[in-house]
Amino acid sequence: MTENTPDPAQNPLVVFTPSGKRGRFAVGTPILQAARSLGVDLDSVCGGRGICSKCQIQPGVGDFPKLGLHVTADALSPFNAVEERYDRIRGLKAGRRLGCQATVQGDIVVDVPAESQVHKQVIRKAASDRAMVMDPATRLAFVEVAEADMHSPTGSLERLREALAAQWQIGDVTLPPALLARLNPLLNKGKNRITLALYRQPDGSHDILDLWPDLHEGGLYGLAIDLGSTTIAGHLCDLTTGAVLASGGLMNPQIRFGEDLMSRVSYAMMNPGGAVEMTAAVQEALDDLARRLAEEAGVDTAAIYEAVVVCNPVMHHLALGIDPVDLGQAPFALTTSSAITLPATGLGMHLNPQARAYMLPLIAGHVGADAAAVALAEAPHKAEALTLIVDVGTNAEILLGNKEHVLACSSPTGPAFEGAQISSGQRAAPGAIERLEIDPVTKEPRFRVIGCDLWSDAADFAAQVPQVTGICGSGIIEAVAEMRMSGLVDASGLIGSAEATGTPRCRPTGRTHEYLIFDGSASGGPVITVTQADIRAIQLAKSALYAGARLLMDEIGTDTVERIVLAGAFGAHISPKHAMVLGMIPDAPLEAVVSAGNAAGTGARMALHSVAARREIEAQVHRITKVETAISPRFQEHFVAANAIPHATAPFATLRSIAPLPDPSFNAGGGGDGENGGRRRRRAR
Amino acid sequence: MTENTPDPAQNPLVVFTPSGKRGRFAVGTPILQAARSLGVDLDSVCGGRGICSKCQIQPGVGDFPKLGLHVTADALSPFNAVEERYDRIRGLKAGRRLGCQATVQGDIVVDVPAESQVHKQVIRKAASDRAMVMDPATRLAFVEVAEADMHSPTGSLERLREALAAQWQIGDVTLPPALLARLNPLLNKGKNRITLALYRQPDGSHDILDLWPDLHEGGLYGLAIDLGSTTIAGHLCDLTTGAVLASGGLMNPQIRFGEDLMSRVSYAMMNPGGAVEMTAAVQEALDDLARRLAEEAGVDTAAIYEAVVVCNPVMHHLALGIDPVDLGQAPFALTTSSAITLPATGLGMHLNPQARAYMLPLIAGHVGADAAAVALAEAPHKAEALTLIVDVGTNAEILLGNKEHVLACSSPTGPAFEGAQISSGQRAAPGAIERLEIDPVTKEPRFRVIGCDLWSDAADFAAQVPQVTGICGSGIIEAVAEMRMSGLVDASGLIGSAEATGTPRCRPTGRTHEYLIFDGSASGGPVITVTQADIRAIQLAKSALYAGARLLMDEIGTDTVERIVLAGAFGAHISPKHAMVLGMIPDAPLEAVVSAGNAAGTGARMALHSVAARREIEAQVHRITKVETAISPRFQEHFVAANAIPHATAPFATLRSIAPLPDPSFNAGGGGDGENGGRRRRRAR
Repeated sequence: MTENTPDPAQNPLVVFTPSGKRGRFAVGTPILQAARSLGVDLDSVCGGRGICSKCQIQPGVGDFPKLGLHVTADALSPFNAVEERYDRIRGLKAGRRLGCQATVQGDIVVDVPAESQVHKQVIRKAASDRAMVMDPATRLAFVEVAEADMHSPTGSLERLREALAAQWQIGDVTLPPALLARLNPLLNKGKNRITLALYRQPDGSHDILDLWPDLHEGGLYGLAIDLGSTTIAGHLCDLTTGAVLASGGLMNPQIRFGEDLMSRVSYAMMNPGGAVEMTAAVQEALDDLARRLAEEAGVDTAAIYEAVVVCNPVMHHLALGIDPVDLGQAPFALTTSSAITLPATGLGMHLNPQARAYMLPLIAGHVGADAAAVALAEAPHKAEALTLIVDVGTNAEILLGNKEHVLACSSPTGPAFEGAQISSGQRAAPGAIERLEIDPVTKEPRFRVIGCDLWSDAADFAAQVPQVTGICGSGIIEAVAEMRMSGLVDASGLIGSAEATGTPRCRPTGRTHEYLIFDGSASGGPVITVTQADIRAIQLAKSALYAGARLLMDEIGTDTVERIVLAGAFGAHISPKHAMVLGMIPDAPLEAVVSAGNAAGTGARMALHSVAARREIEAQVHRITKVETAISPRFQEHFVAANAIPHATAPFATLRSIAPLPDPSFNAGGGGDGENGGRRRRRAR
Repeated sequence: MTENTPDPAQNPLVVFTPSGKRGRFAVGTPILQAARSLGVDLDSVCGGRGICSKCQIQPGVGDFPKLGLHVTADALSPFNAVEERYDRIRGLKAGRRLGCQATVQGDIVVDVPAESQVHKQVIRKAASDRAMVMDPATRLAFVEVAEADMHSPTGSLERLREALAAQWQIGDVTLPPALLARLNPLLNKGKNRITLALYRQPDGSHDILDLWPDLHEGGLYGLAIDLGSTTIAGHLCDLTTGAVLASGGLMNPQIRFGEDLMSRVSYAMMNPGGAVEMTAAVQEALDDLARRLAEEAGVDTAAIYEAVVVCNPVMHHLALGIDPVDLGQAPFALTTSSAITLPATGLGMHLNPQARAYMLPLIAGHVGADAAAVALAEAPHKAEALTLIVDVGTNAEILLGNKEHVLACSSPTGPAFEGAQISSGQRAAPGAIERLEIDPVTKEPRFRVIGCDLWSDAADFAAQVPQVTGICGSGIIEAVAEMRMSGLVDASGLIGSAEATGTPRCRPTGRTHEYLIFDGSASGGPVITVTQADIRAIQLAKSALYAGARLLMDEIGTDTVERIVLAGAFGAHISPKHAMVLGMIPDAPLEAVVSAGNAAGTGARMALHSVAARREIEAQVHRITKVETAISPRFQEHFVAANAIPHATAPFATLRSIAPLPDPSFNAGGGGDGENGGRRRRRAR
């Protein structure tokens, strides 16, 4: 049937586009069969029975000089009864044929349209959405099973296996015992025709996750979840198309056990049963999120067959019910670092009873599956330019490298960037200040809130924004950076007095000052200020972030990077200029800094939609050099030096050429407010 | 290291007995390592660390002319400190060495004693006990895991996998997510030494079922269960030694839904939720039996890691929660016929949480895993003689064949042989009549009851047997056969009157007669008789049995068989002569009839102890020809002809030469008692 066959006249040439794959096939060979034998990506649910219409193709007619082919109109068999019936009932686009019905009659060029490809790329509109390569672990397969024969008595499952081998070339199929009871009733109902949801294992074997009588074309859905220390974000996706049907998030309820990871590890160490309590809390939240997303999308949770979860090592262990106590002390022994597939119920999620959960591999004791997901999404190992990727969260994941070499570390930034530990902080939600500017002369602020495109000094603003509620993560970054650029805060992070700054908005509170952004008290709303404690929290967070990046740069002996990617749940919303004014990231030309959105979440979606992506990151993590921040003396040095805004010693020359960085000093005494450097990260013990 | 190595002086020859395996090894090679590289069966739990002492060997010294070897006393390294310490603390038999400590120094002959072999044969004393080949799926492995290293951060599970690969040559190991939480605490407690219970999958991969800190030598236990329609029998076995620690049984609680299989299928058809109800009942009974056996043996149910269950197809489906309705009508479509491994919880058994259950393959819609177990135990496919195997139960399994060809069928005998449907019937328990003789002249009976070796006419009998309670299966067979031989019952099965038989023990009851065996009413005990209805029940049962055997004989065109094996829960207790007088089995010389005990139970134990046995029967069932009795007109003919005692047409010439078969006729009218032939088996619908 291939080009080796002697008589070309009896074995016309079939060329598939866009793949370019080609081969000779006997006259009468269905196009679907030719595609399969060449490994051409042509979809089919019904396995070639003219039922599902997934295998539509577009034959080309005429001259194809590049291919040296002249294709005549009779190169394919004529439209047959199955196609006519399908066209009449459901409609076929002009020129389209069903690949399982049209047979080879002469040399032919066959185009496989994007919607007929299994591994189709789905292009999303929103900037933060990535083209998804579809190669899902779970897919539908329709089979026709031989009738039971008393004289050759095998079980229905055995006849189903034979049918899968013959019709789908799929061997080694397992039907979970819990589904056995449904097999015969469904075969009886569907007159021995049945549709399966098949889950492909890494070893090529398949598990049956669900089954329906006759042809079933309903949806298969999956969840991609970024399980952070402070927030849990999830996407409900269509496993066939890659479409995101619902997105949402909620606070990690473990916050009540400790705001950062190490305080949760401490909680587990100090309280018998503490780890179990935290596991229950996070599993309940995962289940809750799944239910909410399903409700929003109008999807039955029982139609969700897969969940991919990315998270840092402590969240990973707690989600799995593993006491994270060993992660609180050197050598930070992970219980398992490999990618893990388990029943979704193992994470407390009540999806389809057979649903699988996949957790990406961990990179090291403090560098988690979230970092692996960022690596999958941003692929530093494929980059030409030396790229620094900073995934901002309560625990930041930092990657540095290019195709030569990739390093990774994590840094305990704390929850300030997520609006926690900030006096007027809140999570990103309508009413939260997300952008802020301060006039360098008048020192008056103006801002924008989530849910409205107007600035606060616009005439319509009050009418359109019923309530200003607080400041979210990107808002506080801009607020502190703008205060620094407008001279309200000095390099050490002190807020000046009204006298020193020339604005009554800088007002005393206790021994320090705060800057008034918005006073809603007249209408019963909040008074929103940036306090000295807020500045300190941001300084601690940004120092940790910078110190981690700097440690990786030390490792490969560089002072500059060529490209900076800001990622994180709110990564798309961080202003590169303001991030650099704060000194969150190293000095670099602004155009070299890009926002990647929630890279960990994107990586989770990529893994949800593609087993090839899972295999890629499983292989890749072994090639990443892990750098441990918790025990590095240099990390401590970098952390202290990075406390200043933007930095005590690094010149930030590029930044200074584009942003005003006035140099007041509000430290009257010398001991300052006593806070600077007085607080230390707690981590290793 | 093998015979290819150039210098024999540096590479002495090592010969292992009893296997005869041999090879050349470098001086200094430990004997355990040599054994492993040759595939010699030498046990070790600790993997060669001198801890477990399972690898004891017995070196031979002197001349071995057959091997052409002279072995000197220094052919092994001297007793070392590890061996001395072991000998001091736990004692080593004279001449014994630890295979992991003794190293090759010169040509040597090494005997592996039986107790050091993994695949040791365990010889049981009781007649019904079979030598078990030990090749269990679950075994212990001790490993030393590398310490966690922060600079090369892999998880503990990954380091455990590396250790298993290096120390046990075991790759592809899965730790169930539910056990992940225990890994690090146990590694910490055992200072990175850990013992695993490893379960070997058919594909050679392993699952970790349990884990303990440091070296653990506790027991691994398993259950072999014969799940019959009327009784459930189980053995609790030691998976390391093959020893049976406890045996017991209980009534199948499904009896309340119907005494035979087809009435249970009917129950499922007629009552919504009926199948679910029957599943719950049988699963509860299985769990109950497991708990009772564990209690009796003083074993924690959590130390039971495997259960093997054999049963007929209806019980198989009901135990798995599958509605058996399709088994009630042609084509009798099984949901699955393959061997199945599932979590023991899938059968409702609460053993170790990770315990696996294995169910043998089914042969056909009416020929079950119990028949497969009988085939495994009795191996007709290896026999020279044409062998008929009859597994007596409520549903009889019948196999006929030899190494050329094996056929199988099942026959719905009903529960009469198990003492049910018999007026004074009871299950085999102390006080039940199990043997019975009738004096041919006086027509007086004497009997023996379970639990006492005396006959009832012995002087001490009344003193030793406080209560005669009823008749068990083997007792009713002997009673009816003896009544036939002493002329109390005619060939049609009618009981004669006192006048016709000459004994007042034959007394009228309604329109028929009964024979009085025992009157305990004076002391408040039962009156035990054999009624006309009892005879009819036995006739129906034995006709079904004979007709099934006869159908198989027809298939291969024979009127005689060379060997008959009586098996069943009480197979060992059936008297061959009485069985033949009844016409349960075809005519044959008495010495050709043997009792095999509970062959299905033996097959279950063989499968429990040996994965090779599982693979053998999985392959063998495909070579067995299935014969369907339910739809065969010939079966009906044979059934009717077999109603007479012993048979209406078959001469039973061999039997007549050894047993009196007087020929009275008690049928005064012609319609008889109206029962004969008036009842019909119900089965196919």
